Amino acid sequence: MFLSKLIPVHNAIEIIEENIRQTDLEKIPLEDAYQRVIAHDIVSQLDSPPFSRSAMDGYAVKAQDIFSASLNSPVQLSVIDRIGAGSTSHAVIEEGMAVKIATGAPIPDGADAVVMEEYTQERGDLLDVESSLTPGENVSFQGEDVKKGDVILKKERYLQPPDLAMIASGGYDAVEVFKKPRIAVLITGSELVMPRSILKDAEVINSNHYTVKSLVESSLAIPAINHEEDDAEKVKTMFKELLKNYDALITTGGTAISKGDVVVDVADELGEVLIHGVAMRPGKPFAFANVYGKPVFMLSGYPVAAMVQYDVLVRKNLEKMQNLYKPAQYARKMASRKIPSTLGRTDYIRAKVDGDKVIPLNIKGSTMIKSMVDSDCYIVIEENLEGIGEGEECDVLLYDSLRV
Amino acid sequence: MFLSKLIPVHNAIEIIEENIRQTDLEKIPLEDAYQRVIAHDIVSQLDSPPFSRSAMDGYAVKAQDIFSASLNSPVQLSVIDRIGAGSTSHAVIEEGMAVKIATGAPIPDGADAVVMEEYTQERGDLLDVESSLTPGENVSFQGEDVKKGDVILKKERYLQPPDLAMIASGGYDAVEVFKKPRIAVLITGSELVMPRSILKDAEVINSNHYTVKSLVESSLAIPAINHEEDDAEKVKTMFKELLKNYDALITTGGTAISKGDVVVDVADELGEVLIHGVAMRPGKPFAFANVYGKPVFMLSGYPVAAMVQYDVLVRKNLEKMQNLYKPAQYARKMASRKIPSTLGRTDYIRAKVDGDKVIPLNIKGSTMIKSMVDSDCYIVIEENLEGIGEGEECDVLLYDSLRV
Repeated sequence: MFLSKLIPVHNAIEIIEENIRQTDLEKIPLEDAYQRVIAHDIVSQLDSPPFSRSAMDGYAVKAQDIFSASLNSPVQLSVIDRIGAGSTSHAVIEEGMAVKIATGAPIPDGADAVVMEEYTQERGDLLDVESSLTPGENVSFQGEDVKKGDVILKKERYLQPPDLAMIASGGYDAVEVFKKPRIAVLITGSELVMPRSILKDAEVINSNHYTVKSLVESSLAIPAINHEEDDAEKVKTMFKELLKNYDALITTGGTAISKGDVVVDVADELGEVLIHGVAMRPGKPFAFANVYGKPVFMLSGYPVAAMVQYDVLVRKNLEKMQNLYKPAQYARKMASRKIPSTLGRTDYIRAKVDGDKVIPLNIKGSTMIKSMVDSDCYIVIEENLEGIGEGEECDVLLYDSLRV
Repeated sequence: MFLSKLIPVHNAIEIIEENIRQTDLEKIPLEDAYQRVIAHDIVSQLDSPPFSRSAMDGYAVKAQDIFSASLNSPVQLSVIDRIGAGSTSHAVIEEGMAVKIATGAPIPDGADAVVMEEYTQERGDLLDVESSLTPGENVSFQGEDVKKGDVILKKERYLQPPDLAMIASGGYDAVEVFKKPRIAVLITGSELVMPRSILKDAEVINSNHYTVKSLVESSLAIPAINHEEDDAEKVKTMFKELLKNYDALITTGGTAISKGDVVVDVADELGEVLIHGVAMRPGKPFAFANVYGKPVFMLSGYPVAAMVQYDVLVRKNLEKMQNLYKPAQYARKMASRKIPSTLGRTDYIRAKVDGDKVIPLNIKGSTMIKSMVDSDCYIVIEENLEGIGEGEECDVLLYDSLRV
């Protein structure tokens, strides 16, 4: 099965997006919910703060009692109770009275402000207040942050630490989220062996085992890595097995465009190949299929091509499966030298940012892992551009900005 | 124990840095090494590529044989062998000969280039080549990426997916890294309860349980969360227990500056309190101690103050413990309105970026978790500034940029 024409990157993205599905929901403990995506709006079961409370260590008072207080002319109040955080005073404050109060304790009835401890002198049950304040000062009022029944977080929120505090304060210790996609990875290649210090004949180290695993992890999905020889029957058996048990399949190797290659042929036999060949460099021999209703991303065997294909065509889709949308953030930088490109193809040039400039690396092929290690961004040259002139601004995609 | 003077943020950072230690080393499987920091330079045990190989599907040839080849005047060669990836041809290519070769297969002796399949026509063992090429074309030469004995990664490298491919290709399936710091968290507060839909009296939901856990996770350290009442003896017992078993301790609550408060008093009794009170807002009541040679970060009980203290004074230090250095990335944005500030204090104003502008949120106190949820950055007003004028440029620290 070979499609005859390379398709543009944006078309490939559209086709893939039409063929991915969101994961199911699951309820998890709130304490495990960092970097998960919530499935529903969350409605607070409580006011926050749950009661009007002191924002300082000091004395709960009626503000009008101490309007005239100053260091030279303190106002004297009588202390009728003392409470720590977690305690409640049932005293009612009337004219001339104060209750000693810790940060976080409920404001007693009758009080409307808290004077800070450092502006007071206590002698026995008598208190000299040396500063005035306005009603409401140093008080956090019930419900001023959130009211019971308020929507505190909208569905599809990608949970960060403050969000977890918000949900907890809303009364919840568990939350319904999208499941993390479980991604089967099938590395194909009869020549591939695990790392060792001596290689025989044509053996090649299976570095994709490590990169694809960590790339999937960087998309907050759960990878399961497998390896198979270039044998159509064995690859077919793996496809069937893996697609039964996982939400998606990523393969590497066997995607050549000029001929029928093992992986794409198997995908064609079991399902529908929707993309075979994308107008991009590196990474042209990318294929995509829908097999048993699940997406199959077929990457090159070459590590660098596979990484670029992942960044351009896979990463955001694994995020979308868990309902996570973070668009790529392009920066604009000045090219340090002329960069040629070909119309009709999107180029991803490994490069390094240096202040306002970006320096493309001198790279021969897509085999050079070192070029990924030494670079910190792609210069992206869209298909409608014939290249970038020296000193011209260009689109830069920092590797750091790709992660959610 | 109360120190009498607030110290500037930069002094606090210096003191903390002097009191943290790197974690021990451990050897882990390479496939688990994403986002870990390597302890030593890594020296390749192998050339990469390990042999000169074809970068394309095609025919290995002598480039000089087909210098004159074109579509209208093809050059004829004889195909003497055919090899797939993982196989080696022992044929020797002489004038007029070609070997059919798959991407990744070793280049046979005598060949110096690979002509792509699409520029050829094969009939039996005869091959018409319709395009010329230069020596070396479509060949990845042995060692052109990495030579055996080369340092492929420097120590202290923070491992990303391409780095893992590099290490694997160097012949290693395991790597020595700094251990992830194990961080005990002690949430103090007699009033704190786990999330529920009805609260009694002065009960407050323990939201720090969730935020501090996820903040520590966001620094790639391993948190263990505990809770204790405001009771000096119980807190002391927890300190001893936790500091015996973990690399550092983070507490929340009990750090008030105006009086001896439980947590700081315990730290003072068991070790040395080096910081108590920092000239910042929010987050002034921050304390730091060295107890049993381990760092103790004492944060406020108020969730927002604790989060800001974490971002300013804790986060980078937990990263440094695992030898991870990523300086904070400030952006410059125009303030949408005037923001007052006080000389001698660093302000962290919760705000939202809108293109080139930044909009400070209207916030009353440090109790409001919602202000963290609704913001995406801090406007940082250094202690030597009296505020920012409307339309003036200011330093902005995006929450997203804080994570490694």
